[in-house]
Amino acid sequence: MHDWIDGYDERDWQTTEEGTVQYALIGLGWWTVDVAIPAIENSDLGEVSVLVSSSTEKAERLAEENDVEHGISYDQYHEGEASDAYDGVYIGTPNAYHLEYAETAADLGKAVLCEKPMEATVERAERMVEACEDGDVPLMIAYRMQTEPAVRRARELVESGFIGEPVSVYGANGQPLLEMNSDHDQWRLDPDLTGYGTSVMDLGIYSINTTRYLLQREPVAVSSRMTSHHEAFEDVPDERASSALLLEDDVHMITTSSQRAHEDTHLKLTGTEGTIELDPAFHGEATLQLSRGDVSVEIEHGEFDAQREVREVFDYFADRVLTDGEIYPDGRHGLTDMRIIEAIHRAADEERSVEL
Amino acid sequence: MHDWIDGYDERDWQTTEEGTVQYALIGLGWWTVDVAIPAIENSDLGEVSVLVSSSTEKAERLAEENDVEHGISYDQYHEGEASDAYDGVYIGTPNAYHLEYAETAADLGKAVLCEKPMEATVERAERMVEACEDGDVPLMIAYRMQTEPAVRRARELVESGFIGEPVSVYGANGQPLLEMNSDHDQWRLDPDLTGYGTSVMDLGIYSINTTRYLLQREPVAVSSRMTSHHEAFEDVPDERASSALLLEDDVHMITTSSQRAHEDTHLKLTGTEGTIELDPAFHGEATLQLSRGDVSVEIEHGEFDAQREVREVFDYFADRVLTDGEIYPDGRHGLTDMRIIEAIHRAADEERSVEL
Repeated sequence: MHDWIDGYDERDWQTTEEGTVQYALIGLGWWTVDVAIPAIENSDLGEVSVLVSSSTEKAERLAEENDVEHGISYDQYHEGEASDAYDGVYIGTPNAYHLEYAETAADLGKAVLCEKPMEATVERAERMVEACEDGDVPLMIAYRMQTEPAVRRARELVESGFIGEPVSVYGANGQPLLEMNSDHDQWRLDPDLTGYGTSVMDLGIYSINTTRYLLQREPVAVSSRMTSHHEAFEDVPDERASSALLLEDDVHMITTSSQRAHEDTHLKLTGTEGTIELDPAFHGEATLQLSRGDVSVEIEHGEFDAQREVREVFDYFADRVLTDGEIYPDGRHGLTDMRIIEAIHRAADEERSVEL
Repeated sequence: MHDWIDGYDERDWQTTEEGTVQYALIGLGWWTVDVAIPAIENSDLGEVSVLVSSSTEKAERLAEENDVEHGISYDQYHEGEASDAYDGVYIGTPNAYHLEYAETAADLGKAVLCEKPMEATVERAERMVEACEDGDVPLMIAYRMQTEPAVRRARELVESGFIGEPVSVYGANGQPLLEMNSDHDQWRLDPDLTGYGTSVMDLGIYSINTTRYLLQREPVAVSSRMTSHHEAFEDVPDERASSALLLEDDVHMITTSSQRAHEDTHLKLTGTEGTIELDPAFHGEATLQLSRGDVSVEIEHGEFDAQREVREVFDYFADRVLTDGEIYPDGRHGLTDMRIIEAIHRAADEERSVEL
């Protein structure tokens, strides 16, 4: 077994240790303020130079509190204010606003790091890809699992044949959204802002994208069921969702996601020879459980908290921007997730298997 | 948390400690010989008095080796040979032969304990139920998870609200069948003997039945995908199967099963307040992992091996036969599984959701 787990190289993606990317951060929710700002300050290759929010006043206040040079409003951002002060933008707004900020960044020649899911609909995600390609600016979707050391190690193991021929995948992502934010009017429950729904868009995407990354196989057909029960979920179809995806090479993937469930994040790959399990999977502290033959081992990757996860994403992005390197989770990669999620919603609507 | 796990009562089902049920064991594969015979010998309420096999010679030889009074052939069994020597029969043959032995038992007035799945098709399972009802003999399907202490404890926890409102269920059952028996002509790969297929009939049934037992909710709709790849599986549709079941109260269940995968048995119930996980789930040594709020505990039920599992099934059955008590996993309970499995195969065939 130890042959399989020796020689793991953290940051196998890193190609430069020189240079700095200055960021404008757009959308100042708790994630951006409490996680992204300190994460970038602790990163090797990034600095925050501009905060962009709904009003100049809020942006300036947060800039001062967080020791950031500029605080500007969304309107000022679109007008190109302070655009000499940053090289790239991080878009952390509600899904349906991603496109407009990316379009402006493309116009200004700025690299774009955009939260997942990349937009509210496939059509708007396509427009984002086009805008960034037309503007010739890098576009990355912030899939932080892809720079998680436990996940990258799992991918190496899959590639080297640890599980044999992949047979099935289980992914779960559930959280008690209303315990985290009791407001029934929050944007994650508003289809105008979140897009097709809430549980698959916001949570199921982790299972789907991490599996695509780990197995390097794309879904070819999906089926799904969605139900909503609680009054807070009356405008979205998927308080609970369960989906089955057939991947290339007939790998069977099944997944549940729910915004009203006990916290549970879990990913398991089962092959003809072994299994790789991440439990918990998607919220830091990912623990890797490996089984092959009669042997099972557990690898703890230690205190891999949200800040460290985000730091890795920003440094990966900065590494690529600084070296003009290829970005793996680029806009077209994110667009594939949007098409998968749209198909999952359509499959649930039509109660049939939908091909991709 | 400790309030939830105190007061667990092993054998909460037991109503008598008096009496003995004498068994005729039909179908002398390794399971019957290596597991069932010693398990019954260690049971409180059972004894083996007759072995029934393809030839008188084989049956007599095995009877002698195992210190059992009678060894008879299938033909002799159907003719009523040695019928004074037993009160009940255990049917452990390939699926498609269950009916004929149950019909004879019903004619002879003997109680029937039949392995799961109860037959090869719904129609034959219905005939078994009718035969036993007409003959007024007890019929139980040997779902050994239902007398597993860890599973019974999990059911108590569900009933008492430990997980809150049930949201989703994950069940997995995979094994490397060809490593256990390399013969491509074995009965589990022959649809004339196994029925609709192999992975769902033989393995998926554990996830399905244990979930029905734990949640006391029945599936109302199923969808499924099946693929076969390896040449040994050319006559069965489901070398790999993934299924999604919608249970009563909109509980979303997803499940994978495969006869050509690394061993993996797993059952997880997720609710609004907590999770209950059995990992491994279906092969003894079931380990119960409980989470609620921020607290997680693990309960090991110790060396609950196959023999002990089988002993519990036989003692439960004998308890019911001796007291004329109600059997929970009776013929109609097993028939529901057959209808679910048939619907899963139909859903895979027709690539659509099938209602039950």
